[in-house]
Amino acid sequence: MAMKLYDLAGADANLRFSPYCWRAKFALAHKGLAVETVPWRFTEKDAIAFSGQDRVPVLVDGGKTVADSWAIATYLDAAYPDRPSLFGGDAARAAARFVNGWADTILNPAIVRLVAAEVYDKIHEKDRDYFRTSREKRFGMSLEAFCADRDTHVAALRQNLVPVRTVLAAQPYLAGDRPAYADYIVFGSFQWARCVSSFALIAADDPVAAWRDRLLDAFDGLARRALAA
Amino acid sequence: MAMKLYDLAGADANLRFSPYCWRAKFALAHKGLAVETVPWRFTEKDAIAFSGQDRVPVLVDGGKTVADSWAIATYLDAAYPDRPSLFGGDAARAAARFVNGWADTILNPAIVRLVAAEVYDKIHEKDRDYFRTSREKRFGMSLEAFCADRDTHVAALRQNLVPVRTVLAAQPYLAGDRPAYADYIVFGSFQWARCVSSFALIAADDPVAAWRDRLLDAFDGLARRALAA
Repeated sequence: MAMKLYDLAGADANLRFSPYCWRAKFALAHKGLAVETVPWRFTEKDAIAFSGQDRVPVLVDGGKTVADSWAIATYLDAAYPDRPSLFGGDAARAAARFVNGWADTILNPAIVRLVAAEVYDKIHEKDRDYFRTSREKRFGMSLEAFCADRDTHVAALRQNLVPVRTVLAAQPYLAGDRPAYADYIVFGSFQWARCVSSFALIAADDPVAAWRDRLLDAFDGLARRALAA
Repeated sequence: MAMKLYDLAGADANLRFSPYCWRAKFALAHKGLAVETVPWRFTEKDAIAFSGQDRVPVLVDGGKTVADSWAIATYLDAAYPDRPSLFGGDAARAAARFVNGWADTILNPAIVRLVAAEVYDKIHEKDRDYFRTSREKRFGMSLEAFCADRDTHVAALRQNLVPVRTVLAAQPYLAGDRPAYADYIVFGSFQWARCVSSFALIAADDPVAAWRDRLLDAFDGLARRALAA
């Protein structure tokens, strides 16, 4: 039986934009595991209450439920050790946590500044009050004010990407010679933006763009084929 | 025969403050390898010309010369595979490169903003013109102007440390359950500041401070015993 992944969806149920869900979808593809994704909206808390918390991704694998993208990746490597490893061992998983922490706390906050207003435009009508209220409380201002002055904020994002560029100057992927979970973490953030916005996060000649292109092509174009803005 | 490490020194030859040399010294201690450090000043380019470049750390191991802290760590793991690994394998080394890139391009520039003027005070008289000229060109302003307004810049540093805090909330060391090279990379930056300045980079109750304390104690207090400001 295929696994089930609860996957954040927009007004169009085929628009799947969550960076954390993209991490999980790439993790499953890397392991070669079939998954049925279940579109889920922000306010459908009841539908995932069985997981003991209120956010996606939530993975259901037979009788096992795993929430949180990092926990899902860790679970998949432990439960399916004969399939390609997402990390390459315990030491590599521990080291990849820094990439995860950096993406969660530096990269995603830099990107949300550029795309939050467009996320709002694309989510289901029933989610809009929840999204606006929770985000405006977090940001301390209106969505529109938060996403104004993109030129300044895109420069900040590009500066924040310097460590990624530094690594990609030395090796083709963040995980080394081949893509693995460290790449999916960071790629998920770009794919999130791509799903909701046509704004250019990086210049076309940025080395990060070439890396992103290779990941758009990965797994038979899993990300490139997805509905995007 | 013990290895030799060319190690950046201040006016006091016992003041060894380079963050990159601290990475190398911790790497050697982790491997349990004896090393003789050679004090080296910025302007003693001739003394390390044999290495083919003009910066330290430079490691000499018998007939082999290795420059650059990352290359030294990689070399040590390859040359001494029976001793404790600095990375824990190729996949972990590839993942640790992100920590290295982040420290080089985000962390160290945030710290230099706080300590560059004190570095100047502590270096050898013969290095001062070189240091001031090269740094003022890089910074685009005088050392004194660059290091003014520490309150603003220390807040930026503390914000930049969020990914480190995130990882340390999940595991005791950046490398996992035990310290390894990912930790030495970041610790080297704190030790650099400690050697030249008594300015508090982080609050005493910051979880990063507890981690730093454990590394100050590591290897019989290698870093804690070192001459500091």
